[in-house]
Amino acid sequence: MAAVTAVTRWRLLLVLSAAALGAAGAPQPPNILLLLMDDMGWGDLGVYGEPSRETPNLDRMAAEGMLFPNFYTANPLCSPSYTPQEIVGGIPDSERLLPELLKEAGYISKIVGKWHLGHRPQFHPLKHGFDEWFGSPNCHFGPYDNRARPNIPVYRDWEMVGRYYEEFPINLKTGEANLTQIYLQEALDFIRRQQAARRPFFLYWAVDATHAPVYASKPFLGTSQRGRYGDAVREIDDSVGKILHSLQDLGIAESTFVFFTSDNGAALISAPKQGGSNGPFLCGKQTTFEGGMREPAVAWWPGRIPAGQVSHQLGSIMDLFTTSLSLAGLEPPRDRAIDGLSLLPAMLQGQLMDRPIFYYRGNTLMAVTLGQYKAHFWTWTNSWEEFRQGIDFCPGQNVSGVTTHTQEEHTRLPLIFHLGRDPGERFPLSFASTEYLDALRRITPVVRQHQEALIPGQPQLNVCNQAVMNWAPPGCEKLGKCLTPPESVPEKCSWPH
Amino acid sequence: MAAVTAVTRWRLLLVLSAAALGAAGAPQPPNILLLLMDDMGWGDLGVYGEPSRETPNLDRMAAEGMLFPNFYTANPLCSPSYTPQEIVGGIPDSERLLPELLKEAGYISKIVGKWHLGHRPQFHPLKHGFDEWFGSPNCHFGPYDNRARPNIPVYRDWEMVGRYYEEFPINLKTGEANLTQIYLQEALDFIRRQQAARRPFFLYWAVDATHAPVYASKPFLGTSQRGRYGDAVREIDDSVGKILHSLQDLGIAESTFVFFTSDNGAALISAPKQGGSNGPFLCGKQTTFEGGMREPAVAWWPGRIPAGQVSHQLGSIMDLFTTSLSLAGLEPPRDRAIDGLSLLPAMLQGQLMDRPIFYYRGNTLMAVTLGQYKAHFWTWTNSWEEFRQGIDFCPGQNVSGVTTHTQEEHTRLPLIFHLGRDPGERFPLSFASTEYLDALRRITPVVRQHQEALIPGQPQLNVCNQAVMNWAPPGCEKLGKCLTPPESVPEKCSWPH
Repeated sequence: MAAVTAVTRWRLLLVLSAAALGAAGAPQPPNILLLLMDDMGWGDLGVYGEPSRETPNLDRMAAEGMLFPNFYTANPLCSPSYTPQEIVGGIPDSERLLPELLKEAGYISKIVGKWHLGHRPQFHPLKHGFDEWFGSPNCHFGPYDNRARPNIPVYRDWEMVGRYYEEFPINLKTGEANLTQIYLQEALDFIRRQQAARRPFFLYWAVDATHAPVYASKPFLGTSQRGRYGDAVREIDDSVGKILHSLQDLGIAESTFVFFTSDNGAALISAPKQGGSNGPFLCGKQTTFEGGMREPAVAWWPGRIPAGQVSHQLGSIMDLFTTSLSLAGLEPPRDRAIDGLSLLPAMLQGQLMDRPIFYYRGNTLMAVTLGQYKAHFWTWTNSWEEFRQGIDFCPGQNVSGVTTHTQEEHTRLPLIFHLGRDPGERFPLSFASTEYLDALRRITPVVRQHQEALIPGQPQLNVCNQAVMNWAPPGCEKLGKCLTPPESVPEKCSWPH
Repeated sequence: MAAVTAVTRWRLLLVLSAAALGAAGAPQPPNILLLLMDDMGWGDLGVYGEPSRETPNLDRMAAEGMLFPNFYTANPLCSPSYTPQEIVGGIPDSERLLPELLKEAGYISKIVGKWHLGHRPQFHPLKHGFDEWFGSPNCHFGPYDNRARPNIPVYRDWEMVGRYYEEFPINLKTGEANLTQIYLQEALDFIRRQQAARRPFFLYWAVDATHAPVYASKPFLGTSQRGRYGDAVREIDDSVGKILHSLQDLGIAESTFVFFTSDNGAALISAPKQGGSNGPFLCGKQTTFEGGMREPAVAWWPGRIPAGQVSHQLGSIMDLFTTSLSLAGLEPPRDRAIDGLSLLPAMLQGQLMDRPIFYYRGNTLMAVTLGQYKAHFWTWTNSWEEFRQGIDFCPGQNVSGVTTHTQEEHTRLPLIFHLGRDPGERFPLSFASTEYLDALRRITPVVRQHQEALIPGQPQLNVCNQAVMNWAPPGCEKLGKCLTPPESVPEKCSWPH
């Protein structure tokens, strides 16, 4: 019996070592999973109030983890990574991406799904720190004619393994595609392999079933009360549930940090059949109203992040970079300004850190949130011309002087909303009120400091796009949108810098 | 040792008897608590997605019970019980109220808070089945001048114990009032006394802190991220938590059915400082859009209603009458048509019952929901005249041809929305689509049957109110709103019947 006990102890010790120490015997940092949705809205999860409540797995993830109702993206569309095929630009080598840095701590990294940081070989994710890739450099737009314009390719690592609408079919009529299932299997396989190899891993799971044209696999098609968009959400929800279960089954849930969020608000221009919900918020994708920028966000790390918590920390998607480095025991690069902060104090100690959120559209600072107050320096939805063509970023919503179809400047006297009382940005504070003046007094120096310290990034795409640029030099509007390679863009049309 | 066992058994038997049998030894039906909020919106609870998530007790109630995301009131304002002081009408003796019927099953009943079914002695709640009352026949409007117009009285049973703004102060400037605390103590005291007496009880807790002018007691004032309205919600949430805890502490949670809901959607005319949130839904109180009619709804009965469930049953506030009778083992009266159904099959067996929801504004059938489809036969928000005066039932929302400021008839070709894909009623189905025709084909006979079977109630208030009446005979608009006693209303202005 003593012998059995000794053996048991030895086994236990082995298990503990495997969990806490790397292959080399050093303490092992947690695995990191970033689950990034595409055009999924704040209001699309049951836990965020979606009336059909069809996301039991994400709701459970929130119940077991921490919900961030005040979490923001950095830009109201997938830009700066919005790269049509014809664009020859991409992520420069000078940028230090998360997987590059995580390598220093022994991580192996995989991206599953959409890359969107350039098509050319020098921009390939395996050139920028990732060890594995399954996915595509772009959205699943198409089908194209495959002569002048080929369909968008799908890669496994360096190898092009097919194209959307060809080897990876998407039936636009029925909405059927197996892509989410493939992305799920890629995730599960990667997790299993790394767990077996006892290496810390980083998985960036950037699925795009909720980006129009939305799709789902056969078992999910027609199962949602919300139509095809809901089918896509349900399949993603089911996949997230399977990923979390696999972490638990493999015994690595407590050594794996998982964060779920989305790249921008729901694309209301595609609603209701191909677009989601931004809940009580104003407008959607492409705008810097809350509906375009506030994202669903859930952190999950059993045993470390307390279960069932809500953090009112103002969070930014840029914080995931800094937070992940912190998890890996690394420092952010010191040779450049880093905009994010580590959310670990909010997650692990329930701290609230006072920090502003800046809302950009292109290079223009459209708005800022500080505490409960949001100040708009510019308002704009879509142009009158687009509006007359039926393009509407705010369908059914119209706040006089706020959801403007021309670019309206308020830099001297910003429109200020109290987001606690008025999350839907419907009731600007009176300019004459003490509350307005107090809020403005607090916001002004924060914005001045930000603008003085700002080092603008160099433009990589050099394309005139009214949707992402506030500043449109004369002549640019003739270039069309997002389809002109930078070579042919007149110099005056390049981004202001 | 055998003796001890016998004594223990005897005690156990005693406890079981007390729980399961009434004082007379007959099996005892469950206690019933109906918690009815005033102007609280669907979107005001954390569990329904309110971003500040300040309702931990109600959220816990939902986690321990069943959430109904598709639960409706019968009317988008507190009418037919909207009775200004000058009104001499009220609930007729011919109506058989829930506490009257529950008496047959041995229940003792109390109303705490707003009665709103008539001011005169013959309409007093103790004349209509309630055994106890603490509250007022009306809202806490005021203060009045107390000469031509006295402040609204507050009663304990038959005795007038004071008036709002006098013995029961409400500070309109600070928002401070202790009323919710008083209502809480009345509830706790009643529950304790009935538990001690081992009588089944019915408590109707109709608090009004979320009705403008909103109020909270000192410990809650200024504690919400949502301003004063949020303070009121927080105090009610805290009170609901204390009520549920008291049921648990007294050991009667498993023999007490609790249902939480609201009388109509949030009053957006009072937003953002004095009005709540209808989440993703269109418009608010006074309208028959989802924002006016869909209510937060939570059922709680530990051990009987399974925890953490969501029921997509289309429910109506009228079902609470029938459900409560069913809980008490009683049949609804057979001498009249009863509009509600028992929700027990939905709550206890997870059944989904196919039934329509009718949306009335005054006597006009404005809309109907059947399954996922809602058909509008009339659209109307507020008049242009009101709109020009700044009265807006749909601030920031404008759905062309839907949120109309004139009464628009669509009885021949209703506007139809798919509430699953489009809960915000922003995208009417195309009249030419197969989906529209299929939906209309299913809705038409249901509405015809309803209208053929309908026996209109006799009007009790005889007052011309544009806000509740779709049909306004000439001359009525001169009568003002809700302030004219029926004696002086010209005959032609009485409600159509």
